[in-house]
Amino acid sequence: MGKNLTKRSEDYSKWYNELVVKADLAENSAVRGCMVIKPYGYAIWEKMQAELDRMFKETGHQNAYFPLFVPKSLFEAEEKNAEGFAKECAVVTHYRLKTDPEDSSKLIVDPNAKLEEELIVRPTSEAIIWNTYKGWIQSYRDLPLLINQWANVVRWEMRTRLFLRTAEFLWQEGHTAHATKQEALDEAELMNNVYATFAENFLAIPVIKGIKTESERFAGADETFCIEALMQDGKALQAGTSHFLGQNFAKAFDVKFTTNQGKQDHVWATSWGVSTRLMGALIMTHSDDQGLVLPPNLAPFQVVIVPIYKGEEQLAAISQVANEIVDDLKLRGISVKYDNRDTHKPGWKFNEYELKGVPLRIGIGPKDLEKRTVELARRDTLTKEFVSKEDVVDKVAHLLKEIQENLFEKAKNYRDTHITEVNSFDEFKDVLENKGGFISAHWDGTAATEDEIKKLTKATIRCIPMDSKEEAGTCVYTGAMSKQRVLFAKAY
Amino acid sequence: MGKNLTKRSEDYSKWYNELVVKADLAENSAVRGCMVIKPYGYAIWEKMQAELDRMFKETGHQNAYFPLFVPKSLFEAEEKNAEGFAKECAVVTHYRLKTDPEDSSKLIVDPNAKLEEELIVRPTSEAIIWNTYKGWIQSYRDLPLLINQWANVVRWEMRTRLFLRTAEFLWQEGHTAHATKQEALDEAELMNNVYATFAENFLAIPVIKGIKTESERFAGADETFCIEALMQDGKALQAGTSHFLGQNFAKAFDVKFTTNQGKQDHVWATSWGVSTRLMGALIMTHSDDQGLVLPPNLAPFQVVIVPIYKGEEQLAAISQVANEIVDDLKLRGISVKYDNRDTHKPGWKFNEYELKGVPLRIGIGPKDLEKRTVELARRDTLTKEFVSKEDVVDKVAHLLKEIQENLFEKAKNYRDTHITEVNSFDEFKDVLENKGGFISAHWDGTAATEDEIKKLTKATIRCIPMDSKEEAGTCVYTGAMSKQRVLFAKAY
Repeated sequence: MGKNLTKRSEDYSKWYNELVVKADLAENSAVRGCMVIKPYGYAIWEKMQAELDRMFKETGHQNAYFPLFVPKSLFEAEEKNAEGFAKECAVVTHYRLKTDPEDSSKLIVDPNAKLEEELIVRPTSEAIIWNTYKGWIQSYRDLPLLINQWANVVRWEMRTRLFLRTAEFLWQEGHTAHATKQEALDEAELMNNVYATFAENFLAIPVIKGIKTESERFAGADETFCIEALMQDGKALQAGTSHFLGQNFAKAFDVKFTTNQGKQDHVWATSWGVSTRLMGALIMTHSDDQGLVLPPNLAPFQVVIVPIYKGEEQLAAISQVANEIVDDLKLRGISVKYDNRDTHKPGWKFNEYELKGVPLRIGIGPKDLEKRTVELARRDTLTKEFVSKEDVVDKVAHLLKEIQENLFEKAKNYRDTHITEVNSFDEFKDVLENKGGFISAHWDGTAATEDEIKKLTKATIRCIPMDSKEEAGTCVYTGAMSKQRVLFAKAY
Repeated sequence: MGKNLTKRSEDYSKWYNELVVKADLAENSAVRGCMVIKPYGYAIWEKMQAELDRMFKETGHQNAYFPLFVPKSLFEAEEKNAEGFAKECAVVTHYRLKTDPEDSSKLIVDPNAKLEEELIVRPTSEAIIWNTYKGWIQSYRDLPLLINQWANVVRWEMRTRLFLRTAEFLWQEGHTAHATKQEALDEAELMNNVYATFAENFLAIPVIKGIKTESERFAGADETFCIEALMQDGKALQAGTSHFLGQNFAKAFDVKFTTNQGKQDHVWATSWGVSTRLMGALIMTHSDDQGLVLPPNLAPFQVVIVPIYKGEEQLAAISQVANEIVDDLKLRGISVKYDNRDTHKPGWKFNEYELKGVPLRIGIGPKDLEKRTVELARRDTLTKEFVSKEDVVDKVAHLLKEIQENLFEKAKNYRDTHITEVNSFDEFKDVLENKGGFISAHWDGTAATEDEIKKLTKATIRCIPMDSKEEAGTCVYTGAMSKQRVLFAKAY
């Protein structure tokens, strides 16, 4: 029974695109570059949201909501930020349609309803938020201001891919204001750590925490912290960023406060975000040629029960056992779906839930009833075993933990064996072409070299790892002096 | 200690606007008609969301996400819907900015980046969703399709007011597809009932369930169910609507399915939504001249504890008691904030939490320590009593229930005494001017009469109540025959 899914080894990119659609996660819409997130995909995103939201609140943040639109004059206030996003802005210029005088079934933009000032659909919200903070911050007593927003943003990308790069995407953006530089730096690093913890414990994706080089920094930031993950095809994926914005936005929007010594100072800022792009990272880290593989901590349902029966009588007997298991699993806080639809055959269902990455599948047939057993199948290893009905709940609870850990360990093992130290540019190119993954190499610290390497190899500096040691060396490209290795990779 | 809040009796509208801002719920933004929802206001909205989301899922719905933009050609496909929203559409016409050649610090819209087809920022999502459903629905096995979306929408309103009418607002929109007319009608009524239950049990707002007249229907609907509430100034507020869309969108987007008899038929549809407008209803139903009054079921924190102390030693002793109470309340699932900030005096805090509508306030001073008591103050009645420390948790749990019920009963009593039956147009005008509220009157069933009454009095037909009895009578305006009374009111 085939899923007609392209194999990863044949065409990784095609495999990804097919998987996203066939597993009912998302699809392209009638709007160029914008996706529809389907219920199953959205249920995973909701689980991510719930966990992140909990972590943000535990670290003292509150949610708020700011406008979708940014007036052009505010948008351009912080020059670097504006410059960074100007080329991908959707712009609202009119506020009314009218009937087409040439065809009354059509509408046209009403030329008399042109806005005096154009509105930018937010590509990120620093501008509108800092313009608002100006009214909220007067004194050190108003600080720190620790706010997060769940929102949609629009960046008019030319090449889009479901979840990984879409014109509209969903994300959260934290925007905080602080009295001192150190406090803002600490906050930026703290939130990067929160992202790392979330990625590892929930997505089961091992990440490298680091800082970006100047060329890869967020437009308007003084420092960008990031978490970098490695996909199965050896390409890196930036999974989250946290920016120390210095006083750039406070100066652009004139946000000053009275210090506890009675002086006036500009406020220090951070911003940080993760997006529906995490869905892409999740899919590409764990899934296989059979379809999606979900970590139990994020699966919309962790267990599916499929009855194997002929006739209503058998179904009734199986359903009785199945419903007992459902109740027991729910009591243990395990989410479970009993699929007793008679419109589809068991084989079809097995296939479907494999494709959708449900961590554990329980099959119950007439022989199981006799023996008081069930068949338990793991999605991650594709192994099956018979378990006595009495033990099934304990076994499931145990296996869910094991699967979560196994997925992380497997991904970590792959990632760890794909960080390669190289000491020459030939070696660099060789590893990049033939092995992939992260390349740990010395770099002379200049944007020119970084740019040259990118042009020659398409590899970029993903980050300077937080835990990188000082080590004297020479730049892999120019031979100039270097004090530490950085991580290069081709990236999504 | 004054809050400088305008009294309701002086200027209800001004009172509302001031309250929203002073209680830190929301404020106007730099974007015309768009609001910033502040953390305290957003926390209330989050509680509404959580409860509604739970109710939607319990009734079998799943969340998904559809694009922010609707291509103009899709938008105009369902003519009545398009016509209804055309005059208030924000339109994206360009996708790039560039540096102003005349001033390099400014940006201008790049004329070379004009979209071939304009994109409408969704005022509602029927068009983009039904265009998507076309690909999802082939057979009766794909039905019903029960989907909800949490999203922002934009309607370019000319006169805006915080929460009540804003250019951008947050809402949920359910969009369902069904095999039969009856099933769709049942779904539309079911969701209207869900809204009513939510309004009464959580917002503590009594509502009248009814159907709209043809003139007041959603553009593109065959029937609109609604819940109507009454504000303290005697004006009605439409708190939620649920639409039976017939086959209008299925026909506009050619969404057909194979029935279980093998025939082809167009799908039947519903859509239903509530928005951040509910925040306005909540505020206007319960609040008083002292500020916001929140029902315990929606309060971001239900209890606040304020220490009354001189010096650190007293604070430490009070804090010990306070923290014990905090722990005990949390164990009972009661949300509580202990405000031990030394930057503000107790009187300031009392004032602040009164303004913010916290249902219960506990004050603890040195005398309370001696007597092992606390002072417990109710926000709804503004009454205080001393309670022994041992009894405080039980008392709080009891009072929270009582406050929730009291707010509902108070609002229901006001509403019930403000439904007035009238039998002449003079009486109609007299009640409308001097008493306000709902006017129950006979109407001849014509849009012309409805329109005439609206022009003369500003009152509209809010709904034909679901429970209205047949009763022979004559139209209050034309004297023509009528079979039942309908509810008129001036409305927000």
